[in-house]
Amino acid sequence: MTNISGRAKERLLQLMLILEQHRQTGNSGPVTSAQAEQLTGWPRDTIRKDISCLSHSAVMMAAGNSAPGGHTGYDPEILIPLIKNVLGLSSKRKFCVVGLGRLGSAYLNFSPPELAEFELAAGFDTNVNRVEMLRSSSPLYPAYKLAEVISRFTIEIALICVPANAAQATAEKCAAAGIRGILNFAPVALSLPPEVAVRNVYIADELRSLAIKLNGKRYEV
Amino acid sequence: MTNISGRAKERLLQLMLILEQHRQTGNSGPVTSAQAEQLTGWPRDTIRKDISCLSHSAVMMAAGNSAPGGHTGYDPEILIPLIKNVLGLSSKRKFCVVGLGRLGSAYLNFSPPELAEFELAAGFDTNVNRVEMLRSSSPLYPAYKLAEVISRFTIEIALICVPANAAQATAEKCAAAGIRGILNFAPVALSLPPEVAVRNVYIADELRSLAIKLNGKRYEV
Repeated sequence: MTNISGRAKERLLQLMLILEQHRQTGNSGPVTSAQAEQLTGWPRDTIRKDISCLSHSAVMMAAGNSAPGGHTGYDPEILIPLIKNVLGLSSKRKFCVVGLGRLGSAYLNFSPPELAEFELAAGFDTNVNRVEMLRSSSPLYPAYKLAEVISRFTIEIALICVPANAAQATAEKCAAAGIRGILNFAPVALSLPPEVAVRNVYIADELRSLAIKLNGKRYEV
Repeated sequence: MTNISGRAKERLLQLMLILEQHRQTGNSGPVTSAQAEQLTGWPRDTIRKDISCLSHSAVMMAAGNSAPGGHTGYDPEILIPLIKNVLGLSSKRKFCVVGLGRLGSAYLNFSPPELAEFELAAGFDTNVNRVEMLRSSSPLYPAYKLAEVISRFTIEIALICVPANAAQATAEKCAAAGIRGILNFAPVALSLPPEVAVRNVYIADELRSLAIKLNGKRYEV
């Protein structure tokens, strides 16, 4: 585990998601090198190299054959739990939602099967009425209890769903309380200590990525 | 434009977003090669090569110096509009939101400055009461008008915010009506004709990406 680079980990995660989707869309059986190449868009040697970072014997099992170069494909049933384990996704992690407006409250009762790896431990909002009115299977708290609750329940991840102008201050409070990872839905760049990991989910950025693909198609036709 | 690969386009977009964030966090002046390398995580030669796909004279302007190897840095003020133009993000594109539950309705009145490149042309929901009750600066329609409205206003992009079990059918209707790009917020893999570009925004996948970074830190310390 310790020797896998950050990029290889990101690729293994993507490969795992692709294998899950492959399985979800009704495909069964192993995924060949050629299919893996096509599904991921990466050269098969890169995929093979990434997978070789996983435990040797298990990889041979996943590859369905111990002869190098002659394997029949990667078995999702073996490879998915293997990657999950190596990436540390097997143990549950606690997260909280900060800001329970439309976007934040949408995540209170959102539970696709993949989210089983995570536990919604708390929701916070400055509006006490909102905290009392919203229905949730997890406890909701007024915002002034944020630091206390995060620290008491050792919550590791926070979804920041507050308005843009409150995002930086909220993120700082979360970080000071012990949050180690932030999913930032507010359309601002957060400035935080380097030990706090941040992922930005900007609808505008997603739209732009999509728009580029549309251009590509238009030009390539 | 035609010769820029899909990956180079994705990198140019990322570079543009990073330059925007750099500017947004109060930094002004050019970004050096070393800074660009640090901010993006890519080798400076890759960055230079991607930028060289843009028009030559403009790049020299953006680089602040015409002597190769001796440039003082990339000027965000010049580079951002240049990339935007080359990626085709300068002309407005119409999008719609399909499914106006908590998540979908959150996007009805969401308008960070970057979204100015896109125009929310319509919202749709099967629940007519909801369509009548929700406030929005853009017109909202009952779902049965989806095909007609998308086609009449030549809407190109759809945000699919319907429940998981309705996502595939909804996406198919959108595609048949002329939608060319889909942002899929439903936690299912969509199966669509290859000419329709899809980006999945799965909260579970984002959480997993974040969890991996946390592992990395824990192991690397």
